Amino acid sequence: MINLALFGAGRIGFIHGHNVVKHANANLVALYDPFQQNADKLANKLGCKQMTPEQVFADESIDAVLICSATDTHADLIEQATAAGKHVFCEKPIDLSLQRVRACLDKVSQTDSKTMVAFNRRFDPNFQALQQQVAAGEIGSVELVNILSKDPSPPPVEYIKGSGGLFRDMTIHDFDMARFLLGEEIESVSAHASCLVDPAIGEAGDVDTAVISLTTSSGKLAQISNSRRASFGYDQRVEVHGSKGMLVAQNVNENTVVSYTESGVNSAKPLHFFLERYDAAYRAELDSFINKLMGEKVNLPSMFDGLQALMLAEAALKSVAEHRSVKLTEME
Amino acid sequence: MINLALFGAGRIGFIHGHNVVKHANANLVALYDPFQQNADKLANKLGCKQMTPEQVFADESIDAVLICSATDTHADLIEQATAAGKHVFCEKPIDLSLQRVRACLDKVSQTDSKTMVAFNRRFDPNFQALQQQVAAGEIGSVELVNILSKDPSPPPVEYIKGSGGLFRDMTIHDFDMARFLLGEEIESVSAHASCLVDPAIGEAGDVDTAVISLTTSSGKLAQISNSRRASFGYDQRVEVHGSKGMLVAQNVNENTVVSYTESGVNSAKPLHFFLERYDAAYRAELDSFINKLMGEKVNLPSMFDGLQALMLAEAALKSVAEHRSVKLTEME
Amino acid sequence: MINLALFGAGRIGFIHGHNVVKHANANLVALYDPFQQNADKLANKLGCKQMTPEQVFADESIDAVLICSATDTHADLIEQATAAGKHVFCEKPIDLSLQRVRACLDKVSQTDSKTMVAFNRRFDPNFQALQQQVAAGEIGSVELVNILSKDPSPPPVEYIKGSGGLFRDMTIHDFDMARFLLGEEIESVSAHASCLVDPAIGEAGDVDTAVISLTTSSGKLAQISNSRRASFGYDQRVEVHGSKGMLVAQNVNENTVVSYTESGVNSAKPLHFFLERYDAAYRAELDSFINKLMGEKVNLPSMFDGLQALMLAEAALKSVAEHRSVKLTEME
Amino acid sequence: MINLALFGAGRIGFIHGHNVVKHANANLVALYDPFQQNADKLANKLGCKQMTPEQVFADESIDAVLICSATDTHADLIEQATAAGKHVFCEKPIDLSLQRVRACLDKVSQTDSKTMVAFNRRFDPNFQALQQQVAAGEIGSVELVNILSKDPSPPPVEYIKGSGGLFRDMTIHDFDMARFLLGEEIESVSAHASCLVDPAIGEAGDVDTAVISLTTSSGKLAQISNSRRASFGYDQRVEVHGSKGMLVAQNVNENTVVSYTESGVNSAKPLHFFLERYDAAYRAELDSFINKLMGEKVNLPSMFDGLQALMLAEAALKSVAEHRSVKLTEME
Repeated sequence: MINLALFGAGRIGFIHGHNVVKHANANLVALYDPFQQNADKLANKLGCKQMTPEQVFADESIDAVLICSATDTHADLIEQATAAGKHVFCEKPIDLSLQRVRACLDKVSQTDSKTMVAFNRRFDPNFQALQQQVAAGEIGSVELVNILSKDPSPPPVEYIKGSGGLFRDMTIHDFDMARFLLGEEIESVSAHASCLVDPAIGEAGDVDTAVISLTTSSGKLAQISNSRRASFGYDQRVEVHGSKGMLVAQNVNENTVVSYTESGVNSAKPLHFFLERYDAAYRAELDSFINKLMGEKVNLPSMFDGLQALMLAEAALKSVAEHRSVKLTEME
Repeated sequence: MINLALFGAGRIGFIHGHNVVKHANANLVALYDPFQQNADKLANKLGCKQMTPEQVFADESIDAVLICSATDTHADLIEQATAAGKHVFCEKPIDLSLQRVRACLDKVSQTDSKTMVAFNRRFDPNFQALQQQVAAGEIGSVELVNILSKDPSPPPVEYIKGSGGLFRDMTIHDFDMARFLLGEEIESVSAHASCLVDPAIGEAGDVDTAVISLTTSSGKLAQISNSRRASFGYDQRVEVHGSKGMLVAQNVNENTVVSYTESGVNSAKPLHFFLERYDAAYRAELDSFINKLMGEKVNLPSMFDGLQALMLAEAALKSVAEHRSVKLTEME
Repeated sequence: MINLALFGAGRIGFIHGHNVVKHANANLVALYDPFQQNADKLANKLGCKQMTPEQVFADESIDAVLICSATDTHADLIEQATAAGKHVFCEKPIDLSLQRVRACLDKVSQTDSKTMVAFNRRFDPNFQALQQQVAAGEIGSVELVNILSKDPSPPPVEYIKGSGGLFRDMTIHDFDMARFLLGEEIESVSAHASCLVDPAIGEAGDVDTAVISLTTSSGKLAQISNSRRASFGYDQRVEVHGSKGMLVAQNVNENTVVSYTESGVNSAKPLHFFLERYDAAYRAELDSFINKLMGEKVNLPSMFDGLQALMLAEAALKSVAEHRSVKLTEME
Repeated sequence: MINLALFGAGRIGFIHGHNVVKHANANLVALYDPFQQNADKLANKLGCKQMTPEQVFADESIDAVLICSATDTHADLIEQATAAGKHVFCEKPIDLSLQRVRACLDKVSQTDSKTMVAFNRRFDPNFQALQQQVAAGEIGSVELVNILSKDPSPPPVEYIKGSGGLFRDMTIHDFDMARFLLGEEIESVSAHASCLVDPAIGEAGDVDTAVISLTTSSGKLAQISNSRRASFGYDQRVEVHGSKGMLVAQNVNENTVVSYTESGVNSAKPLHFFLERYDAAYRAELDSFINKLMGEKVNLPSMFDGLQALMLAEAALKSVAEHRSVKLTEME
């Protein structure tokens, strides 16, 4: 049995908290959230204690922490937790500052803790099956990756203001997916972005629609399409084109019913948003983390993966500003 | 909170037992299985007591029982449970004898217990969405229902010998689905059946492949196709044709990945069998039962539905034997 | 070059006439239609002469005739044409009377003419590909065939009155398809039918909705679903279930565009009716006939196939009337 | 009746020549090809005369010419034909030199001839339906266009050497499609390209895999993916994302058959290459040209469209060379 503590009782903390409680090999010992109301509500629901981070770090019975708190607390909590000998499962991003992320990685590397940055999409059964087929050589060597990721509707402008912007908040998942699928580090980033969905997003200094091209040193290419709006639901698709074929992961739909009437042929919409679409992925990523702690050989997205995805976001911002292709080496 | 006891620790008892444990509004108080090894194993896993049926019926804290035991115990347990004031969730069939089923309904009707025969397919999200669209008039009045149901591979011949045969064991689900979708009682049954999959099934006096036609008094028609073998997985599809259109519920596939190579275009197979395909349905049917006990207005498949499905199976057997269309009134 | 004459300048004559004119290896020498206006119009369009059947039969330059005239002229024209040494391509049915068809086959068998009953669906690229995959053993031995055939809307009641009824007019195609796919003669027919689409059809003594079950002597099974109404277009699908898998031929849609909006996911409808859906099939069946005449080895649907399909229709009528399974041997 | 002459008896001349012959409102009067063998063969097949361009231009009975000859003859023939009062249907590109194209447009604009650059994809029934749905406002205002275009396999290196390279030869179609769907002129081009398919292509100074990002002045975005290799067939797909939804045009497959076996679920491949996929488009584009000549209001892709597509190709080349986003105004 793995004993876990949860930091953060918001939306994503809610998901992971419930998944721990249902897990056969894990206990949720305690949770913490500075917003007392949130903390009380979730602790009550999950039947667990409340402990401060300091108490958690001092409690020898606790094996690992799940960091689902506000972004600006991630790096500190990671450092403190690993210093205290705890394993760490942390939501993305590690921090919005590249420098801070690098310092954090440095400290963590001096400990024996197992750490994971929770890029949930790597655990989606569809993307995972696709990646395994790529890795098995089913389509030969990868040449081109196309990633499309659109949210059903934009978050509140207040959220956007603190999010680090589209590239650091949303595209970061796609940058990670590109690395996951290309099987090779990215060399250059070229991005174009617009504010088409809501002028308020532009006024907040951000964009809501973007296209990004990526290249690797061996000449592999990738494209990302992003929008904060899809109107019909969560649009999350991936294609990998290789020397011997192509793999496509389509959207997951609400059901399989198709209706044929005089007015047309109607099928169910894609699952509405991440809670529905990545339900299985959230369970699988926690499962993988717990299996790792129990000694199994499991590949987890690492702190380094978190750093790379953020560097790609920074390069994209630079590319938009300077109307040119930006090399990742420029970000170091 | 609803307190439940489980009779039967086999495959289906395992599913329902786990679903009760995970349910927010239900407790699994105890279970019983005459095979002590099974009982110990599951009770241990689920962290519940073991009690005999008599102890369960005498325990005032227990609200309802889940009957997942051997078929020949169903009717007795239903009668005893309802006599003791317990609500009942019972796996199909109520019994393999029409006479016994009728006697059981009679007794139950003299009690105030809420009872449900667990036709799981009514709770499959796809078939449920389809039925709701039918009920909402999306395709006008129903004219023709096509049901296709094929297992990936036949059960052991030993199982078949005690199963009551294809019509009572497997087609019974399709008979219920036909009634669910036609929205009108069935008048006549015409069936044809063969033994094509395994001669041992024929030697055991059963068939493994069948087609059935159904009619209602207003002239609506339905067709059922059955096979004990599908090789590629569980084939579970439904079509409803109405005056204004058609609704189709397709299979649910393992994932959404499609592979395009020189040798062809490959997509994922349908989910392998009922455990995978009806995972959500099992959770939903338990949920509905519990909601009913908690006072919500919920339509549950009833003991009468269980009786009708069995009568249709009997009529199908008669039709095969006599090479003619059999009226349901002949079965009474 | 094959020289052809066309009897009948109606809808189907129009199709075949145009296809002959576009064909690289065939000339349309002449056409005939007792309705002079029709004859003039089509002859003008196709740039061919008009000749009476007698003139056609006497003209040694003409190799073959295409019989697209009224049903009650088919058998006579076939007999006269073959007696005159012409090859024959004839639209279904040969005649509505089984006795007449048998007499006609008898006479034709005494000539050296090549004859073909134009069951167009055998030449649909989708059904043909499916049948070839069945024949290649891709799904092992055939166990169950499901055929669904629905027209977008019923023909005028006047047409229905002279059509021989649903089974002889519409299901006849499905009976032929069942024989094409089962690879074995049909032994028994069991049919159920209703008048649900239009009471006027019932008043004309016909039905508009039907389900049919077929068996072969080795126990293979087939099901046919028919309706004179589909509202969303022409519904023409086939499934073959075998010992090693299943083959499905889906509808052909107007285009591949899918629209995703807040109100749902919409794709194009199936092609509206036979002119659109079987456009390629009409060209392919003529092509096969011409290739046969030019000496190639080609399998064509024969006069015997035409007889069998009609016998199945007769058996279906008897089955409906007598509420029982009818053996094909009873029809002889 | 429109009288046409055809220049060029190669692969594309073959297609258009046959389509003219089959057309109800057009005659193929003559053809010309400097390779006498090609000319003889096709003239024989199509039953038309041979005339030199000079003879064609001098023949008052000829209304229009179809220019399907070598690329470096296009501009001269367009100028001569329009000067002689002939209408012109010309294969893309007008010329590989921007300067030459501009001079040609200049001359043509001083005549009354109707001219068309044959961007066949605008006439594909799928892309056309999609564009009409966009134009009808079905998905609100366009925000993002994704175009994917992959050939089954690269052409011979000899062809590539004279082709003007990937962007001018292949992507030119996608540039035109982007303009067709964006409904707004493109402002900037950003391209990345690699040689991944065949080193011989790289040695010939060309690339075989590319990704391109486009922007418009209002901030609309587009992405193009190209590869000279798809292994499974011709991959030709388009997506348009708008403020109210998304439209997707999928590939057209060989047939609708799906095979389900133990080894997986297999469906038919996309149509192999442009001859199959754009068969209907070639007929439709000729039809539109003839309708235009007969006085109908028809939108045809213009010489200006040909110029713009070439300018975009030039900008893409510059973008690859300079690793930056190139404004279209830089090309003027």
